[in-house]
Amino acid sequence: MIKGTVAELLNSDKILQEVHVKGWVRTFRSNRFIALNDGSTIHNIQCVVDFENMNESTLKKIATGAAISVTGTLVESQGKGQKVEIQVTKLEVLGESNPEEYPIQPKRHSLEFLRENAHLRIRTNTFSSVMRVRSALSFAVHKYFTENGFYNFHAPIITGSDAEGAGEMFHVSTFDPKNVPTNENGEVDYSKDFFGKETNLTVSGQLEAETYAMALGKVYTFGPTFRAENSNTTRHLAEFWMIEPEVAFNDLDANMDLGEDFIKSVIKDVLTNCKDDIEFLENRLLQEEKSKPQIERSEMALIEKLNFVIDNNFKRVSYTEAIDILRNSKPNKKKKFQFPINEWGADLQSEHERFLVEKHFKCPVILFDYPANIKAFYMRLNEDGKTVRAMDILFPGIGEIVGGSQREERLDVLKDKIDALGIDEKELWWYLDTRKFGTAVHSGFGLGFERLVQFVTGMGNIRDVIPYPRTPQNAEF
Amino acid sequence: MIKGTVAELLNSDKILQEVHVKGWVRTFRSNRFIALNDGSTIHNIQCVVDFENMNESTLKKIATGAAISVTGTLVESQGKGQKVEIQVTKLEVLGESNPEEYPIQPKRHSLEFLRENAHLRIRTNTFSSVMRVRSALSFAVHKYFTENGFYNFHAPIITGSDAEGAGEMFHVSTFDPKNVPTNENGEVDYSKDFFGKETNLTVSGQLEAETYAMALGKVYTFGPTFRAENSNTTRHLAEFWMIEPEVAFNDLDANMDLGEDFIKSVIKDVLTNCKDDIEFLENRLLQEEKSKPQIERSEMALIEKLNFVIDNNFKRVSYTEAIDILRNSKPNKKKKFQFPINEWGADLQSEHERFLVEKHFKCPVILFDYPANIKAFYMRLNEDGKTVRAMDILFPGIGEIVGGSQREERLDVLKDKIDALGIDEKELWWYLDTRKFGTAVHSGFGLGFERLVQFVTGMGNIRDVIPYPRTPQNAEF
Repeated sequence: MIKGTVAELLNSDKILQEVHVKGWVRTFRSNRFIALNDGSTIHNIQCVVDFENMNESTLKKIATGAAISVTGTLVESQGKGQKVEIQVTKLEVLGESNPEEYPIQPKRHSLEFLRENAHLRIRTNTFSSVMRVRSALSFAVHKYFTENGFYNFHAPIITGSDAEGAGEMFHVSTFDPKNVPTNENGEVDYSKDFFGKETNLTVSGQLEAETYAMALGKVYTFGPTFRAENSNTTRHLAEFWMIEPEVAFNDLDANMDLGEDFIKSVIKDVLTNCKDDIEFLENRLLQEEKSKPQIERSEMALIEKLNFVIDNNFKRVSYTEAIDILRNSKPNKKKKFQFPINEWGADLQSEHERFLVEKHFKCPVILFDYPANIKAFYMRLNEDGKTVRAMDILFPGIGEIVGGSQREERLDVLKDKIDALGIDEKELWWYLDTRKFGTAVHSGFGLGFERLVQFVTGMGNIRDVIPYPRTPQNAEF
Repeated sequence: MIKGTVAELLNSDKILQEVHVKGWVRTFRSNRFIALNDGSTIHNIQCVVDFENMNESTLKKIATGAAISVTGTLVESQGKGQKVEIQVTKLEVLGESNPEEYPIQPKRHSLEFLRENAHLRIRTNTFSSVMRVRSALSFAVHKYFTENGFYNFHAPIITGSDAEGAGEMFHVSTFDPKNVPTNENGEVDYSKDFFGKETNLTVSGQLEAETYAMALGKVYTFGPTFRAENSNTTRHLAEFWMIEPEVAFNDLDANMDLGEDFIKSVIKDVLTNCKDDIEFLENRLLQEEKSKPQIERSEMALIEKLNFVIDNNFKRVSYTEAIDILRNSKPNKKKKFQFPINEWGADLQSEHERFLVEKHFKCPVILFDYPANIKAFYMRLNEDGKTVRAMDILFPGIGEIVGGSQREERLDVLKDKIDALGIDEKELWWYLDTRKFGTAVHSGFGLGFERLVQFVTGMGNIRDVIPYPRTPQNAEF
């Protein structure tokens, strides 16, 4: 007897042999045809039941969601839609699923409803596809970096350093909140907390990754990061996974090359390895968009869009050029932008990024050399004294997917910037040490993994591409 | 001109060609021989300087820790210890390193000193080897599961569920600790906190992983987990990375098979891919143990020990058998155990585990079928009504490296156990749903990644196998 997963049996040529498979019933129709799925593929295997010779009570228990064990003969299918099916000789119901109570019925459920049942939504076609693609993308990330000589670096999650300044942070503590110790000045006495100091959840592993790049050469992080921002949007999570490569001796050009090559490679990888799931998601998206007005529909179908990204160079544009384009653009002149672009130095908003990517260039865009005062302290100051070697990669429909920079490697310049921000140098003694001892040009970037998953799966809401999303007022499960 | 890493050039056959490499000076002797390292390998490439024709001020800056850029001719080496070296034609000092100030000098530093300089210890042979092996092990984990049909599942880090009970937890909050809102009863008003409820850092992704296994079949987590325990030992961290596979339809035997096969596979993988680093670490350990009394030294050298694990079956022993062995053991009879074993039901301590593994069986041991009352509520009750289908894998020198179980799949039994513990069923509604709808036998385990890294690298202290360890009173960097 051949034991296999649904994926293995569907691709098998063991016709007329006895096979065994376990899984969950997706549908059961005409008391005869079970569509069985075990998560190994988007496709179900059809199991044909001889209901006339089956125990009535067993037959009754075959319902959507039930776990069953099937033994039978693999035969060529007479029906459409599948090459092979199983003529069932033995069927056991392992776990029932009462149709009156089971929330996931074989019909279209709203994404909102499924979010409230995040522990069961993975049993739908859409979410099993999304999460298989997420998993494949995750492996593609590790594979890309490993094959290119990078070392995986596990950045600390709990951090005593709050100097990165990328956003609001979550406090981590073992204090009893009703009884927080204070010192004689009435200040919280963090020396009595678990770590003996104030600690938070990391917003980025970059600064620590830099210390490792300055010894191992090429490193990357891939771990959870956190923002305690009250952003209830389709693009923000309080807890998300970030990928941050950091490379010694790379300048900004090399950094842009890395970002572009990395994104193209991992997308190519999942297009090959998740063909069935991505085809399913493409169709899902087409269906979803049918209900939208023409103007809001995607110009390209999902796979076409992914191939477009792989096949075309990302357009590299300086911030200064971008400002010129935006200032002279129709929406700016017609005052259609919520934030009009009047002068150099303006921070770009989502509407501007989308105009550049979706209307003007119609391809992924890398913006670089931003004004120093709208970017982080660790970015390398250009010779003009007013711009820094920053770069953002902007994607259609997603906006910023990557933010990176060449890092300021000059100790004196870095110290001046830290001082100007009022950060205590002692807070960053270890970071400054990397510039004091054997400093060198180096660069890196951060890529929000969920935005990449959104792009590849075509899912509109970031809460639908992570198993259990954390957002303001929501930490269910 | 050939640009390459040190690893590439050392393995290159491009003799007499012009090469270019950047890295950090490990040593500089006789004003002539630079040992250059760039993190790509444990080995340095020797760069031979023609000091008589070199700018004196440049020459002075070539010091341990300095970043340099070297161009020269790759030639066969005259000296011992390397096949090729670079005859330098051009050398640029990118970043100096003042020998008076640089903490990492070419001599043996204590591990304690290096822990205080965790941002620089990665520039030593020992830590660069450990972290390269850690990275390779990490990739081996992802590769193993991917090749065996598992999906990577990102478990939530911030959790609103505290029912797992694996240990003390860290609170996550955005409350101002000096001003925590309370309700009319004087209780903390968590509805005003970021997530609208009390939240903690996860101690395990298992319960959530089970929900995914019951749809995707085979899943695994690999992410950070947290214990707010005041354990200042060489085996405990407050923040550590855990691997948790969970497989639908696997019983405990299949779970043991998976655990054993997984560990053997990843060790085999890094023995092949990190040969140089592991050889270096084996020698380091031999040196370290020379200063120990004979009785405390390892019986096997590192590589021999790793091969022993790969080549031998793990001994599978029931808890009941283990208790018999322990009760009748010499140390028990001679009252050498701190916790004497008198009767069935005793919780096994580290001393007992070590006796079984290191003295009695002299190989990795899998203990199974533990008393129900010393194990977690979700483990499957055996027919005897007093033991559960738990298993721990015990390793020499490390103790417990894996803890797992077949999960209780019967809704009524699980509810009884939850009720007996006084846990509110509503807290676990989503977990219970997996038993309510399509339940099936399933199993999984948790493996502490750092303990695996300790075993493979031979490092005695867990703080030395993670980049920035978090322990009581310590969250530096």
